[in-house]
Amino acid sequence: MTSSVLSITLPEWAAEFDAPGRVYASDPERMQLAVDLSRLNVERGSGGPFGAAIFDGASGALLGIGMNSVVRLNNSTLHAEMMAFMRAQASVGSFSLATSAGAGRELFTSCEPCAMCLGGVLWSGVTRVVFAARRDDAQRLAFDEGPVFPESFAYLRRRGIRIEGGPLRDEARQVMEAYRARGGVIYNA
Amino acid sequence: MTSSVLSITLPEWAAEFDAPGRVYASDPERMQLAVDLSRLNVERGSGGPFGAAIFDGASGALLGIGMNSVVRLNNSTLHAEMMAFMRAQASVGSFSLATSAGAGRELFTSCEPCAMCLGGVLWSGVTRVVFAARRDDAQRLAFDEGPVFPESFAYLRRRGIRIEGGPLRDEARQVMEAYRARGGVIYNA
Repeated sequence: MTSSVLSITLPEWAAEFDAPGRVYASDPERMQLAVDLSRLNVERGSGGPFGAAIFDGASGALLGIGMNSVVRLNNSTLHAEMMAFMRAQASVGSFSLATSAGAGRELFTSCEPCAMCLGGVLWSGVTRVVFAARRDDAQRLAFDEGPVFPESFAYLRRRGIRIEGGPLRDEARQVMEAYRARGGVIYNA
Repeated sequence: MTSSVLSITLPEWAAEFDAPGRVYASDPERMQLAVDLSRLNVERGSGGPFGAAIFDGASGALLGIGMNSVVRLNNSTLHAEMMAFMRAQASVGSFSLATSAGAGRELFTSCEPCAMCLGGVLWSGVTRVVFAARRDDAQRLAFDEGPVFPESFAYLRRRGIRIEGGPLRDEARQVMEAYRARGGVIYNA
């Protein structure tokens, strides 16, 4: 890394999942990828217990993946969702994932987004967000979610973004518990 | 760029400002840097009318700079503040800019932060945020600021982060007007 370039890399174990175009047909399959990324991130010691992936809603084609990389890359902005936005936008070659027709693009994330990522959703161009673990699950682990209020969700919904709790909540919560059991860094407690 | 690496670069014109350690003694000097970055970003056609810089509060030493790079790098997360967090954290070699003593680290930004960047402030470790142009100035230009509420600021204040309007509002607003006059992309309207 020179002084003028920041390199944002995936951990080595993630190479096999970094397959834009691979099809994930259903909501449970899409969420399984996000939760698998969160679990492997903990098991391989490469970061916090959070994973995310972005898909084309209609075809189910993967556009980009992300996993919490705050500690690994010394970068507080690299929550799983933010990395997924960056990588999906690199895949499509645009700063927006919005589509002019079809079902739009969808973010699947292993945990309800924090304030930063929720703001990031608005600018990313995705039109649907599905999360597994809930805000309360993260806060029980002492991860702060920041200034997110019911009006925050209403704001996004008024702009046409659907946000919903989805499958695999228990599995995602178990990954967070495993992280705590390993003594993982709660980097924003 | 390989498929597994994202490179986040500064525009070439910014090299002369990329000088971690350079001292900016006063608030007006610190804000002048942020606003200069916003203006040059517009004049050189490298992005939106927003600049930011992070300083050590006590010494005034620059830690990192940022300028809106959403369109240039096809990355909706690269608001000026987010880039400044990333670069300052790379400078100090930590995911947090928090200090155990002293005045902490300070973000100077040419415009009041959007919802994403305000969430990012919380995770970054800075303890003071000073902005030039106000939310209303950005919204007049049709830049959406996202779900930011009075409670959002209260939330950060309760965690020890000071947020305040500072000098150079008019100059920062003029940069935004110049961007509009050039027909700059309002990438999140």
